[in-house]
Amino acid sequence: MRILNYLLGYEDLKIYQDTDMFHFSLDSVLLPNFVTINKNTKKILDIGTGNAVIPIILSTRTKANITGVEIQEKSYQLGLESIHYNKLEKQIDIIHSDIKKFACQIESDQYDIITCNPPFFKVGEDSHLNELKEKMVARHEVCLTLEDVIKISKKLLKNNGILALVHRPERLIDILILMKNYNIEPKKIQFVYPKMNKNANIVLIEGHKNGKPGLTLLPPLYTHEDNGDYTKAIKGYFIRGEKNVSEEL
Amino acid sequence: MRILNYLLGYEDLKIYQDTDMFHFSLDSVLLPNFVTINKNTKKILDIGTGNAVIPIILSTRTKANITGVEIQEKSYQLGLESIHYNKLEKQIDIIHSDIKKFACQIESDQYDIITCNPPFFKVGEDSHLNELKEKMVARHEVCLTLEDVIKISKKLLKNNGILALVHRPERLIDILILMKNYNIEPKKIQFVYPKMNKNANIVLIEGHKNGKPGLTLLPPLYTHEDNGDYTKAIKGYFIRGEKNVSEEL
Repeated sequence: MRILNYLLGYEDLKIYQDTDMFHFSLDSVLLPNFVTINKNTKKILDIGTGNAVIPIILSTRTKANITGVEIQEKSYQLGLESIHYNKLEKQIDIIHSDIKKFACQIESDQYDIITCNPPFFKVGEDSHLNELKEKMVARHEVCLTLEDVIKISKKLLKNNGILALVHRPERLIDILILMKNYNIEPKKIQFVYPKMNKNANIVLIEGHKNGKPGLTLLPPLYTHEDNGDYTKAIKGYFIRGEKNVSEEL
Repeated sequence: MRILNYLLGYEDLKIYQDTDMFHFSLDSVLLPNFVTINKNTKKILDIGTGNAVIPIILSTRTKANITGVEIQEKSYQLGLESIHYNKLEKQIDIIHSDIKKFACQIESDQYDIITCNPPFFKVGEDSHLNELKEKMVARHEVCLTLEDVIKISKKLLKNNGILALVHRPERLIDILILMKNYNIEPKKIQFVYPKMNKNANIVLIEGHKNGKPGLTLLPPLYTHEDNGDYTKAIKGYFIRGEKNVSEEL
């Protein structure tokens, strides 16, 4: 079933979702608020953009040109409709392609920022055999592995360009080692905890292509109060104009 | 000047310190409270034990036999006196030696746990030319690098034995990569923040020799309230018998 959702409180933004498919989730709200954007940011690429939730939220923080690439036809169509609905066609361009093919065809060293909310699970892990193909592709590393994302980013980012990922803490070591292997220096990490006194369940990480070593651990982010409400910090991400965004450099 | 300090609130433990030398600090209180200890823990090694603060705190959590190795004569003497003062000679044994020499001379695969609060700074980093030699050795990787600590631990730990380190978050990537290189699987990480909304300034990390992958990010620990007081969590570490210690497995 196709539905039109408010974008979690962004008053004037809405997004199309298909209830049978992978929904955008908190991850996709955290990442575009986490990544470092400054006034020199001109071109952004979002890998596996789904229904374009990350580009749409990014558009509230920057005038940069944003490209989203999505392999799945249905998600791509929802993304197009969401962008049209929000009148963002001039700023956001969605391409229906396999990012690996896309990366081969275009020029290197051209993006200031790449964002990606990649498939979280290795193939075989947490597998549900009856899962819809669309959900499977979005959740598992069937078409795109973590190494693919980092290798592609290494090619497409400008020197000192930024790769920002959202992932599960269990994969932290893989992410750090792969980033180092591809000369994308991890610079900024933030762990996200579901509640006080619970283990982290999300990690946000930013690396700079050919950057100098020097890692900062940002203050932790809690998503929910004990009573299940979103915390003030998370609500702050949802109210346009009052967002607690990353420091603008 | 030599002084006899209360061990930060452990009512019946005291420790000798020399005000000209490297003081034990919060790091040395956090680490022995963080490391996983269980009833099968029989032998513990503390590398670079200084005035034996880590073994002395460990003695409040376990009956295991604890060995501390310290290269510096003055620190070693203070450690001996502290152990004597606290009547812990039967449980804690301090050896005046270079850990690299010590590791060559003894049998492999014998410790259940190795703890280390290693020198934090690479040589050349944060260097104060006039610094006392004793302080320099304790704070900089002059005699002992991070890789030395991990390599030695790999040799001396039993299969599935635990290495627990306290370090600066800036070195997180080095620690994770070195642990992986020496088959010490990072299993548990806790970041320590000086206050709410500040970046982390300490990382506690535990790896298991030949362990299976699977990393847990523990809830963050804050050391100080906004008014500068220790937080309740930290005070909990200081009151013997009421310590909020790591889960006993």
